[in-house]
Amino acid sequence: MLEQLKKEVLEANLSLVKNGLVILTWGNASGIDREKGLIVIKPSGVPYEKMTADDLVVVDLEGNIKEGSLKPSVDLPTHIELYKRFKDIKGVVHTHSDYATSFAQAKRAIECYGTTQADTFYGDIPLIRELTQEEIAADYEKNTGLVIIESLGERHLDKPGCLVSGHGVFSWGDSPRKAAENALVIESCAKMAFQTLLLNPEAKPVPAYLAKEHYERKHGSNARYGQGEKE
Amino acid sequence: MLEQLKKEVLEANLSLVKNGLVILTWGNASGIDREKGLIVIKPSGVPYEKMTADDLVVVDLEGNIKEGSLKPSVDLPTHIELYKRFKDIKGVVHTHSDYATSFAQAKRAIECYGTTQADTFYGDIPLIRELTQEEIAADYEKNTGLVIIESLGERHLDKPGCLVSGHGVFSWGDSPRKAAENALVIESCAKMAFQTLLLNPEAKPVPAYLAKEHYERKHGSNARYGQGEKE
Amino acid sequence: MLEQLKKEVLEANLSLVKNGLVILTWGNASGIDREKGLIVIKPSGVPYEKMTADDLVVVDLEGNIKEGSLKPSVDLPTHIELYKRFKDIKGVVHTHSDYATSFAQAKRAIECYGTTQADTFYGDIPLIRELTQEEIAADYEKNTGLVIIESLGERHLDKPGCLVSGHGVFSWGDSPRKAAENALVIESCAKMAFQTLLLNPEAKPVPAYLAKEHYERKHGSNARYGQGEKE
Amino acid sequence: MLEQLKKEVLEANLSLVKNGLVILTWGNASGIDREKGLIVIKPSGVPYEKMTADDLVVVDLEGNIKEGSLKPSVDLPTHIELYKRFKDIKGVVHTHSDYATSFAQAKRAIECYGTTQADTFYGDIPLIRELTQEEIAADYEKNTGLVIIESLGERHLDKPGCLVSGHGVFSWGDSPRKAAENALVIESCAKMAFQTLLLNPEAKPVPAYLAKEHYERKHGSNARYGQGEKE
Repeated sequence: MLEQLKKEVLEANLSLVKNGLVILTWGNASGIDREKGLIVIKPSGVPYEKMTADDLVVVDLEGNIKEGSLKPSVDLPTHIELYKRFKDIKGVVHTHSDYATSFAQAKRAIECYGTTQADTFYGDIPLIRELTQEEIAADYEKNTGLVIIESLGERHLDKPGCLVSGHGVFSWGDSPRKAAENALVIESCAKMAFQTLLLNPEAKPVPAYLAKEHYERKHGSNARYGQGEKE
Repeated sequence: MLEQLKKEVLEANLSLVKNGLVILTWGNASGIDREKGLIVIKPSGVPYEKMTADDLVVVDLEGNIKEGSLKPSVDLPTHIELYKRFKDIKGVVHTHSDYATSFAQAKRAIECYGTTQADTFYGDIPLIRELTQEEIAADYEKNTGLVIIESLGERHLDKPGCLVSGHGVFSWGDSPRKAAENALVIESCAKMAFQTLLLNPEAKPVPAYLAKEHYERKHGSNARYGQGEKE
Repeated sequence: MLEQLKKEVLEANLSLVKNGLVILTWGNASGIDREKGLIVIKPSGVPYEKMTADDLVVVDLEGNIKEGSLKPSVDLPTHIELYKRFKDIKGVVHTHSDYATSFAQAKRAIECYGTTQADTFYGDIPLIRELTQEEIAADYEKNTGLVIIESLGERHLDKPGCLVSGHGVFSWGDSPRKAAENALVIESCAKMAFQTLLLNPEAKPVPAYLAKEHYERKHGSNARYGQGEKE
Repeated sequence: MLEQLKKEVLEANLSLVKNGLVILTWGNASGIDREKGLIVIKPSGVPYEKMTADDLVVVDLEGNIKEGSLKPSVDLPTHIELYKRFKDIKGVVHTHSDYATSFAQAKRAIECYGTTQADTFYGDIPLIRELTQEEIAADYEKNTGLVIIESLGERHLDKPGCLVSGHGVFSWGDSPRKAAENALVIESCAKMAFQTLLLNPEAKPVPAYLAKEHYERKHGSNARYGQGEKE
């Protein structure tokens, strides 16, 4: 079942490796069929070069396995929380891509230093707080999702991803492909922000009116970028 | 129409991806047929891996579409202004290549620290001022072209490109291929300048006589580099 | 003899090049057959692109050549000491991968700034002290192994690799493949730690309870990562 | 004539591109037949992807073209001076590889921070002084060779390359292949030295006895590295 979605989720997972966002098994992508309430996700610890659509695991929103002989990614509970709360997203991605993760390790949000970031993020790429010892001990992966939701509230549409302190990146979108693309945007903006800060430690974010211009050029009802397709 | 120019513009666009200057759809290249007064440019938001010569859009110098079923790049008005004022150029390129964009975000010109840059740029790679809120609100892409022209005046031949503050790179040349090559020169020199400044924050530009020697070795009537072809 | 082990050792050596950890002949991987007490190791100074399983050298734990017409890697005595003392490892790798080697040259251990490192290393990637002039003069490669053992004691299971001051990386694992994978983990964590420290020179390691959570998620009897295979 | 040497010179030139040391036409490699006193060198400004052995130019030690329809590299006079004075070398390479060139632009020699560099360079990779205005005006490329010779004296065997201030890299060896390999060693050591200095601005070179151990392990009559081939 869900053959088309499986194909999209497999492609999103493989694109992470191709774009240099994931090495070894350090990442995962999922997609959701909102009508059926079923998630397709990468299996845990399976090398990307051997993965096929049949290896993907189908689960419901309570995490029950509905199809597949492998165990799902250990990060599944994080994906589930994001799907439950952000009801308009259809894909979630997790990476440890290296520039973005370096910001997460340095405990710094990625300020919006230029229009490249403004095209996708309305302002900074937020840094989510560290989990407490209790949150880690009790239900680590689920609580990771909850702290993201706690921080972002309803801003998840103009902030399609974030950095989790000391950990890595979560991103999302209206398809697995778009979630993976946002993971690439985050890494690329992180690299540029890193270099910007080394060249000018006092660098300032772009003015709000420039960020708005670029964001709205690509998003919303007056978008003039692209061929008129739904973003 | 313009089959040969379309081929050159397609190749210039694809070279940006191949050389690592562009990811996703973050860049565009165009070329102009000066006799006919027609520009061939990348369509907006179309993935590079799927683009063919037939997807390219033909427009006149007022931006009217003369051929093609897709919308042209949103940056077309910038290209048009550059073609109108810099009458000897035949190709324009825009990228968000990461080292160069980092200088644009840090609000620093790229000083000429070595002969690598002097071979193409007579002195620094200039930083163009930020647009005002009014310039952004009124006609953003056209005004981007105008501030480049305002800053460069007639120096566009020995400065075949620039950084736009908080944004990215524009470059040009006497063909789409040469404009794309200059975008690569800018990124490569930006990377070296970045590293130079981290190794020596007090690094000084090369003396004018060395810059002149290298620039003239490659350009002008006494050039001794290459096989005598027109640059 | 040892055809299967030779295949694994060849693949581990080639993976070092493929993953960008080794250029020229700057690295080596070996594996051991614990029952027979025989080591298979890369020959010295042979280019990777020409290497075949037949070029690998079989030696015993005293370094006597048992099969092969080529000389073994000059680092063989280091491998032998590690195999003798760390009795549960079955693969050893040596690289000069550039971020990790930069930490070794800067005389800094790689602190555990995030969960990426915590998944493999329980805490820091240790820096092994410089050898003394006497240790270098007498039996350099053997003494390199001895100082690693002196520093790590019995911690080699939750520290599957280290940096040797002014030199490079040694890593190990329960197979040649796993030793090579750990060399990649070290380089990747080194790159992120480098970037973290440039973004925040006061960056702190993750709390012990987060490191423990991630380490135990992947290792030990309660591991929930992967498909239940032996690590 | 000189078919075998042309093949080696072509391969050395192409290896520069493959190893990421050269983009566009920013580099050149040559080789010499000492018996005939003839040099084979890359033509000026010809793209690497189109170059064939037939495009290479044969010149004598006075720079007279003996075969070939193209103009030789503008850097030929530098190569000639090096061949004339360093009588045991048989290959010369010039690059603008980016980390090494950054040191040249920052006016810093590359100190020997680790054994990776010590395996090829006995101590630092030297920085050659800037040419004076007179030296640049009179005979720029020839004088570039002369200042290298002035600085290195007879140390060119244990220093098989250098950085020219504000310019780039020259390297050499007993074959075109070895000269190109030394250019790769210089770039790789430059990258590690760059990172080392950012991690520890007070980093110190390795002790002389460790540098000596590594250098002599690979070079000289007691070398124990490799398969006994002549270096």
